[in-house]
Amino acid sequence: MTEASRNQQLLARSLHAVWHPCTQMKHHEHLPLVPIQRGEGVWLYDMDGKAYLDAVSSWWVNLFGHNHPRIKAAISQQMDQLEHVILAGFTHEPVVQLSERLAALTGLGHCFYASDGASATEIALKMSFHYWRNLGLAQGKPSAKTGFISLQNSYHGETLGALSVTDVAIFKDTYASLLRQSIQIPSPDWRLAEAGESAEAYALRCAQALETHLQQHHATTAAVIVEPLVQCAAGMGMYHEAYLQRLRALCDQYEVHLIADEIAVGFGRTGTLFACEQAGIRPDFLCLSKGITGGYLPLSVCLTTDAIYQAFYDDSTARGFLHSHSYTGNALACSAALATLDIFAEEDVIARNHDKAAAMNVQLQALQDLPIHHLRQRGMIWAFDVASTHPDFSRQFYLEAMQHGLILRPIGNTVYFMPPYCITPDEMSTLVDHTAQILRKLG
Amino acid sequence: MTEASRNQQLLARSLHAVWHPCTQMKHHEHLPLVPIQRGEGVWLYDMDGKAYLDAVSSWWVNLFGHNHPRIKAAISQQMDQLEHVILAGFTHEPVVQLSERLAALTGLGHCFYASDGASATEIALKMSFHYWRNLGLAQGKPSAKTGFISLQNSYHGETLGALSVTDVAIFKDTYASLLRQSIQIPSPDWRLAEAGESAEAYALRCAQALETHLQQHHATTAAVIVEPLVQCAAGMGMYHEAYLQRLRALCDQYEVHLIADEIAVGFGRTGTLFACEQAGIRPDFLCLSKGITGGYLPLSVCLTTDAIYQAFYDDSTARGFLHSHSYTGNALACSAALATLDIFAEEDVIARNHDKAAAMNVQLQALQDLPIHHLRQRGMIWAFDVASTHPDFSRQFYLEAMQHGLILRPIGNTVYFMPPYCITPDEMSTLVDHTAQILRKLG
Repeated sequence: MTEASRNQQLLARSLHAVWHPCTQMKHHEHLPLVPIQRGEGVWLYDMDGKAYLDAVSSWWVNLFGHNHPRIKAAISQQMDQLEHVILAGFTHEPVVQLSERLAALTGLGHCFYASDGASATEIALKMSFHYWRNLGLAQGKPSAKTGFISLQNSYHGETLGALSVTDVAIFKDTYASLLRQSIQIPSPDWRLAEAGESAEAYALRCAQALETHLQQHHATTAAVIVEPLVQCAAGMGMYHEAYLQRLRALCDQYEVHLIADEIAVGFGRTGTLFACEQAGIRPDFLCLSKGITGGYLPLSVCLTTDAIYQAFYDDSTARGFLHSHSYTGNALACSAALATLDIFAEEDVIARNHDKAAAMNVQLQALQDLPIHHLRQRGMIWAFDVASTHPDFSRQFYLEAMQHGLILRPIGNTVYFMPPYCITPDEMSTLVDHTAQILRKLG
Repeated sequence: MTEASRNQQLLARSLHAVWHPCTQMKHHEHLPLVPIQRGEGVWLYDMDGKAYLDAVSSWWVNLFGHNHPRIKAAISQQMDQLEHVILAGFTHEPVVQLSERLAALTGLGHCFYASDGASATEIALKMSFHYWRNLGLAQGKPSAKTGFISLQNSYHGETLGALSVTDVAIFKDTYASLLRQSIQIPSPDWRLAEAGESAEAYALRCAQALETHLQQHHATTAAVIVEPLVQCAAGMGMYHEAYLQRLRALCDQYEVHLIADEIAVGFGRTGTLFACEQAGIRPDFLCLSKGITGGYLPLSVCLTTDAIYQAFYDDSTARGFLHSHSYTGNALACSAALATLDIFAEEDVIARNHDKAAAMNVQLQALQDLPIHHLRQRGMIWAFDVASTHPDFSRQFYLEAMQHGLILRPIGNTVYFMPPYCITPDEMSTLVDHTAQILRKLG
């Protein structure tokens, strides 16, 4: 059997047995499906040994590269102690340490765990709703604060609760009749500004629209949920931190929770460990997942404040937050997360990323003469929109990128780079040079 | 620092930083929280070295004991190849192999993965709804099949979609206004039968109630979701397989999907690899999690039929199932699941469990003179209800069990055993003897 046939054989088997996520499976009659055998740093290798630069960090989860010795060692070491124990009535060192360290890094002292990112969103929504309910019960009048607000074009996951605050038509419209209504407010994504309007001015204008809404509806609003700084699934829509500062002030003024969904933007992705830091704000709930384990294992968490925790702390069982998942606080996933935090602490990741980002920005000047607009960057995320008349730009670009050994998955006409942080200057050159070639070819 | 203080110190830190699942945190002012340092077989050891028999398999996830060499080796080996890759557009050997093997074992050929069990429920509900929608679109008339039916006292998870078909008041009532309505039909749990009514007769009477409902409402019903054979969170409510046979026939007759939630009852727990086998039926959707990785790592999957898969297979993107989770098909979790299936295949687990269960049933005769009723067993699940007048029986029993070095978490007045399958005859004796002592003490 030739090497080439190993690739072909595994992809045929996969299409037969695996229902791939976020995929119209029929499209794979024409689109390639690539079987990956191993990874190393930013590179993934298929069964034929062909290398692909993982410029999307395997769906925005990988931070320090594939096959990372330190994370592997941490998981191995933990496997020799304890792989998992029920977290109701029991606890273990990795989940305690991880919670303490996340609390120290965020100022949010209580960690509630799950495994899927969408579950963290669900937990934040349920906790916010339940907080207001408990407060109402304590005051002897039922709370009307049951509504949720999210930004236009936002993505917060696809379980039905999370999907109810997501605003991406292709994911949401089909299931509309299953979903509780939520309110969408104008997105501060700078691309939506008037010509000549600064990012900050536009952000403040959007915050004004939120204020107008809250003036009327705060009494029926439990929380506002946002992805701080970058609306990733909207095509890396970036916005000014002034929005977050106004949002925090308005949430305080109108007694509405602020849920920061840093599932995609957390763990250094936007240039600080957490995106909220750039606005100098602290949310009431912080949802984390993806990069939390360096891209190794599923783990998600919703962090919150003492004030919210205290509203559940009562003799009554029903006032407690009784949500659970069997694998909550899995010790192996927590050990991968601790290794990830160690790497941040000891390898000066944020500062080194800053230098890398500056170098990448210089390299990206090579794209200047191409028909792109809104070239933008925040931390280790770059994006630009392509003025293509190609009816199927996204797919064509993806296919060309694969030919060039790059994993790039444009969102509509937006091409973005979200590489692992271990990317080298040479690898950045490869990424930019080949991207330029593809853009020239697609015209 | 003494060993005792290590225990105390870690539990204090945990209560401060970790919001434990399914827990009113204030209750831990009196209830112990136990820090677990390591595991071995059925035993968990706290920081003082005290051993606890994990008679609940760490929330029903552990199958072959803690610190299992074979599962550890599989994860280690996979870590040297590939820990994770985006599963949209890419694939890998462990997820393909796992899907093929699950398909061969269940007759359901398409596997859609997530990490939390609740996410598998959400996927099944969304897929069922979307299937009928696609069928309606193909026939040029919108489908009215949008409703879901579940059993009274059922548990299918606590994200908002999963919670909408769950029927456990303490988990659901608080969030009622966030939830879409679903229908609950009589539970075939034999404990609810009339005096003298056989399990089978009662099951058929409940199936009759379902038929009456479907006669009127099939046109607006997408699916019925059940936990086959044992409603675990309802207090191990066991029922006759005749119910499942009638349910399958009714779902066929009235064109309604049958979703089997085998998250807790799958992987040998009820005496066959999957509970549905005992009824000789195949569901339209099968949800699995918990035991799938032997209790090592979070992984869940929703399997379905060719017919359902085909209804999504279309040129239109929107007719595809676009749901996703970042860690879908995580290679490390899949490798743990493959090791779990290897153990089933090579170590004659089901047959050996059968012998173990028989031995345990003999031992349980020692409880006969105690004030218990409905002593029941299915595979590796045992349960009985205690005729206690103690106002706080569940908590008192739990506390006593901890003193005896047993992890037992009664559900209301129901005491149940759900041990790892590696439990030995001696360990069974320990479990039964100490349980008898506790029952005598609590009176």
